[in-house]
Amino acid sequence: MERLDGNSKEGSLYTVHVNTGIQELIFMIKVGIIGGSGLTGRELIRIILRHAKASISYVTSRHYAGTKVSAVFPEFASMYDGSFIDPSDPKVFSGVDAVFVCLPHTEAMEFVNNANGRGIRVIDLSADYRIKDAKVYETWYKQPHKYPELLKRAVYGMPEINREAIRKADIVANTGCYANCTMLGVLPALSKFKVESIISDAKSGVSGAGIKAKDSSMYININENDTPYSVGRRHRHVPEIEEVLESATGKRVPLIMTPQLVPVDHGMLATIYMKLKEPVSLEDIKTAYAEFYNGEPFIRMQDVISMHNVVNTNFCDIKVEDSGYGDTLLVVSTLDNLIKGASGNAVQNMNIMFGFDEKEGFK
Amino acid sequence: MERLDGNSKEGSLYTVHVNTGIQELIFMIKVGIIGGSGLTGRELIRIILRHAKASISYVTSRHYAGTKVSAVFPEFASMYDGSFIDPSDPKVFSGVDAVFVCLPHTEAMEFVNNANGRGIRVIDLSADYRIKDAKVYETWYKQPHKYPELLKRAVYGMPEINREAIRKADIVANTGCYANCTMLGVLPALSKFKVESIISDAKSGVSGAGIKAKDSSMYININENDTPYSVGRRHRHVPEIEEVLESATGKRVPLIMTPQLVPVDHGMLATIYMKLKEPVSLEDIKTAYAEFYNGEPFIRMQDVISMHNVVNTNFCDIKVEDSGYGDTLLVVSTLDNLIKGASGNAVQNMNIMFGFDEKEGFK
Amino acid sequence: MERLDGNSKEGSLYTVHVNTGIQELIFMIKVGIIGGSGLTGRELIRIILRHAKASISYVTSRHYAGTKVSAVFPEFASMYDGSFIDPSDPKVFSGVDAVFVCLPHTEAMEFVNNANGRGIRVIDLSADYRIKDAKVYETWYKQPHKYPELLKRAVYGMPEINREAIRKADIVANTGCYANCTMLGVLPALSKFKVESIISDAKSGVSGAGIKAKDSSMYININENDTPYSVGRRHRHVPEIEEVLESATGKRVPLIMTPQLVPVDHGMLATIYMKLKEPVSLEDIKTAYAEFYNGEPFIRMQDVISMHNVVNTNFCDIKVEDSGYGDTLLVVSTLDNLIKGASGNAVQNMNIMFGFDEKEGFK
Amino acid sequence: MERLDGNSKEGSLYTVHVNTGIQELIFMIKVGIIGGSGLTGRELIRIILRHAKASISYVTSRHYAGTKVSAVFPEFASMYDGSFIDPSDPKVFSGVDAVFVCLPHTEAMEFVNNANGRGIRVIDLSADYRIKDAKVYETWYKQPHKYPELLKRAVYGMPEINREAIRKADIVANTGCYANCTMLGVLPALSKFKVESIISDAKSGVSGAGIKAKDSSMYININENDTPYSVGRRHRHVPEIEEVLESATGKRVPLIMTPQLVPVDHGMLATIYMKLKEPVSLEDIKTAYAEFYNGEPFIRMQDVISMHNVVNTNFCDIKVEDSGYGDTLLVVSTLDNLIKGASGNAVQNMNIMFGFDEKEGFK
Repeated sequence: MERLDGNSKEGSLYTVHVNTGIQELIFMIKVGIIGGSGLTGRELIRIILRHAKASISYVTSRHYAGTKVSAVFPEFASMYDGSFIDPSDPKVFSGVDAVFVCLPHTEAMEFVNNANGRGIRVIDLSADYRIKDAKVYETWYKQPHKYPELLKRAVYGMPEINREAIRKADIVANTGCYANCTMLGVLPALSKFKVESIISDAKSGVSGAGIKAKDSSMYININENDTPYSVGRRHRHVPEIEEVLESATGKRVPLIMTPQLVPVDHGMLATIYMKLKEPVSLEDIKTAYAEFYNGEPFIRMQDVISMHNVVNTNFCDIKVEDSGYGDTLLVVSTLDNLIKGASGNAVQNMNIMFGFDEKEGFK
Repeated sequence: MERLDGNSKEGSLYTVHVNTGIQELIFMIKVGIIGGSGLTGRELIRIILRHAKASISYVTSRHYAGTKVSAVFPEFASMYDGSFIDPSDPKVFSGVDAVFVCLPHTEAMEFVNNANGRGIRVIDLSADYRIKDAKVYETWYKQPHKYPELLKRAVYGMPEINREAIRKADIVANTGCYANCTMLGVLPALSKFKVESIISDAKSGVSGAGIKAKDSSMYININENDTPYSVGRRHRHVPEIEEVLESATGKRVPLIMTPQLVPVDHGMLATIYMKLKEPVSLEDIKTAYAEFYNGEPFIRMQDVISMHNVVNTNFCDIKVEDSGYGDTLLVVSTLDNLIKGASGNAVQNMNIMFGFDEKEGFK
Repeated sequence: MERLDGNSKEGSLYTVHVNTGIQELIFMIKVGIIGGSGLTGRELIRIILRHAKASISYVTSRHYAGTKVSAVFPEFASMYDGSFIDPSDPKVFSGVDAVFVCLPHTEAMEFVNNANGRGIRVIDLSADYRIKDAKVYETWYKQPHKYPELLKRAVYGMPEINREAIRKADIVANTGCYANCTMLGVLPALSKFKVESIISDAKSGVSGAGIKAKDSSMYININENDTPYSVGRRHRHVPEIEEVLESATGKRVPLIMTPQLVPVDHGMLATIYMKLKEPVSLEDIKTAYAEFYNGEPFIRMQDVISMHNVVNTNFCDIKVEDSGYGDTLLVVSTLDNLIKGASGNAVQNMNIMFGFDEKEGFK
Repeated sequence: MERLDGNSKEGSLYTVHVNTGIQELIFMIKVGIIGGSGLTGRELIRIILRHAKASISYVTSRHYAGTKVSAVFPEFASMYDGSFIDPSDPKVFSGVDAVFVCLPHTEAMEFVNNANGRGIRVIDLSADYRIKDAKVYETWYKQPHKYPELLKRAVYGMPEINREAIRKADIVANTGCYANCTMLGVLPALSKFKVESIISDAKSGVSGAGIKAKDSSMYININENDTPYSVGRRHRHVPEIEEVLESATGKRVPLIMTPQLVPVDHGMLATIYMKLKEPVSLEDIKTAYAEFYNGEPFIRMQDVISMHNVVNTNFCDIKVEDSGYGDTLLVVSTLDNLIKGASGNAVQNMNIMFGFDEKEGFK
């Protein structure tokens, strides 16, 4: 591969010497991964390494700056030769078309502002630009939002409802994992039927709890257990879901969510109960879901639901079940919490932003 | 230990030579375990071996008749020396005060009738005598009930609501595991508040699926997964729960249950959502639960819920959570599906039937 | 993609309309998967779907003939639209460049003969063509080998020692999983030092035990356990390893192997102890390993060994450890039992046979 | 129960009012648990609560002093009402017959000296009094031993070789878990045959790594993995094993040990390879093991080995396997790392010290 042209917001041009001797011009972009020593960063590296139209320009880590990425994540030995760079490195804001931000809340807010100021398109995996209402943000994240103007311009990164806006966005606020799994499970119903309330009993793999050692993520606590936490309305994805659903469907529906850690590495499965104002037949519900997701590259209506079918993929599999009562809708939704629930969805957003095939990187 | 006296419905008398040389007369009983080569049988053996007032007279198994119990369950090596006997062995109906029936549905029905005809008190772990309405039984178990008279006399073996009836019962129909976990989680609310509907999202360890090899219990299918099955109103414990709750509280409340296999051996945890007609304060709910279970030896209202705290015990731990909405009650209930959900509860029933300390065998 | 030319032993020619409008001729092959409803078949489908130079012509299954592959393996929904065909279907021997044989022992033997007779190159994942000595084969597999001539021509499919022979082979006998993990761990030592004996304590994920329900693969037996089986010299991979090592290094070294099922889905890790005639320094051993595997695309000498780094990849990671004794060599070797231990290695063999980049399908 | 008499080194006398009205004098002791907020402390509480001849006087914890034990370990709710006390509490050295010391190395050394000075019998679960050679201790634990005289008097707490010495001991140094599992697997062979070298490939449940949060005990690192660490001669139990085996059998045999964390909570299983100077028949080996352990209450020679048969018990199950070579002995040994590998063995030691039935507490 030989580079022909510098990067721009519109990407870069490369010559590809294919083995038949024919040359070809393809559009490729370079991306940076900010705060890449955690689990979402690791997953981004894995996906971008497989991406035909994007390459990794750098990965930052304050803690591991100067260390080879493959020394921290030995799975990348012989696959990726780069070293982590410090986030203060000038390289961070030069020569990249897009950055993925995997920083903690607050820190991300600042970085996104900086990147945006330099004309770099941002996919933010933190929660800092997800909630449009700055007051709600402040209530849940215990800090005022410093960039309310940017917040307004940021697009919520859920392709299934925001595809066109994402295409043109400078800042995409990638969905939270519980949020994505729950919302994908309820959106078609909310759009078509009168939903009075939602209960999402959401089981997550432990990778959702991050890479840092803590009591609640210890093997001896997780193994042979099922651990509900932040139940009811206490999880930060609750206001995110409520706002997004309202914005997408015009309806504010009360939500109870029961996040749970199950003894699983990657994966999430939500059993979702929706109370309807009027009974609807199972057939009508199934039709509504099939129509809503018609053409979506990563949503599959399945007869059999298993985390195994979505783990390590960007798919979300959904099944409408018979609750036994016409006025209660029972839906099961499953995805990989680190892929369609985080880094995979982020790359899908990138694909949309740069006009790539949405499936690129997931083939 | 030297036997002084034959068995009777009232038990047997033994002389105990304690190591101080003092003799003591204690009341002991002998029990048989019918169909004891499965997981509930194994658990019964384990508990009875620790019981100070009951000893195992025999364990039957058609398949393993003549084989040492410890050859099939090597954990009992040097603890229990007996061999399985065939269910046709005359010993089955002689010299025992009580039998635990661990046969499949239908077979249990017949055996219970026989044992009852010979004056032996029965604790039936099958579903054959749980549902009082013979028509409902026939609908769910695809066969008519042959002994409707016995069915009427059988007592549902849930000490928390039927203690006095169990004390005098000849036939006790031990609770189902999902049923017990769900009912213990909702009973205080149903007794005191106006509950409109119940959703029980119930996660079970795989031992609940039995000892026989089948695809759905294979390691590769269960591991790294969460597997809902027979959701809505499709699980056989649904009619059992509805009938028992109605009989105990006078109210028929619609129930949706989502049984799930989680990658856990022993253990069950249900997150339960109850819709109330009128909002109730969290404090009032907590008080109602504390009062309802006051004095119960095996129900603990806990601030922290973990399967780990109940596994290998006869406890059911319950927590009332804040759902975020006054009209929706969120309760988490956990127990060991093979103990308080099956064999432990059965021994608790036996303890009540014979006037023993209810905690005997679980100390 | 539009086909220009029929298949041949040398592959097929296709026109690719890339999105720049440029046309390109690339060499592509079509493959069949025989007996593809098991775990190795599933893994082959997954890998070939990602392969740029090979496409799946068909997948056979006696049991599922006529059923969509994605109905049996719903993970392939929206990815692969084909249905299983019966092995007697005439399509099986027409229009394919190569077949992967995932049949049980004996059945594979027959099929390989048929395919070979029709000029189709074969990668056999069964054990039928691994052991060159027909008498040894008969001893271990309890049947005479019907095609001793083919057996002689078949090449043992271990690229690290047989790359050139594989390139030209008509029949490649793919390695067994325990065999590959152990042999990759010992080969450099055997080639360079005087090894007197080998002990391989090999822990395998349960997927190695296949897709069929059986007691020994039940969740309740595997979970929270470590299960040695066929220890000492009782596993069928023992004679395979001994013969291959002898053929590669000229030395017959006694082997004790302790296969174990650990509560893991995919993955295998062997701790290997080699007794040396003369002490060797740790540095010399490390150098020997690095040199032996220099340039190998899938063997990585790592400082940190974890199944996690190789699962879902075709890598085998190896570490030479300090045993504390100069005359005992301690090596840890890990791979994915279904990939580098089976289907991945099979595709690597295919890549070599057809002149593709060995990494194709694994990028 | 009414106390008649104060404690003494010889225990206490109680009156027991049994339900028949007969009184009985039984010998009971009171014990303290020092550093009881970890996993071995928790297990000791569990066992002592079931013990008919010992009761818990107190449990210390610097961190949790003043907090109810059942608030830290909710499994003890309604079973144990006490609160943790500070180790400086005067109660620590008064009114107890024995203390179990679960302090970290170094701290234990000091405490044991203090307790011993006050005439309290000590079972030390730390490593501080295990290694008799103070120089070896200093090499491995990076500190000089402050009480070499006590070290000499301390008895290594392995009932199977030191029963008589334990009976009279003031200080018992309880075995390490890897040490116990390995030694129980090799002792009969060492006593009877000429063993040249030992390799112990020892898989441990993660509870062996303690209760504190750390990277290496995180669910995401342990799950779906097998993690060797401190291999060769790097684990601290290696010098312990070598010294004890030499002291018991008069032979110094080189040992290689491969400790591994497997995705299991409780449990340990070692596959052990012993090189013999001269071949011995399998029958002779089996006989030697059966004779050596004849009468041992907790050692079972089993035909089937499974962690499941020993978890939550004080048993160690052992099987002699056919290695395929007469000069290599292959033994599998399994126990619960927290019970026979730690707290259960400690209570067995206590039972011996106070003349109780060794099985008391484990029935």
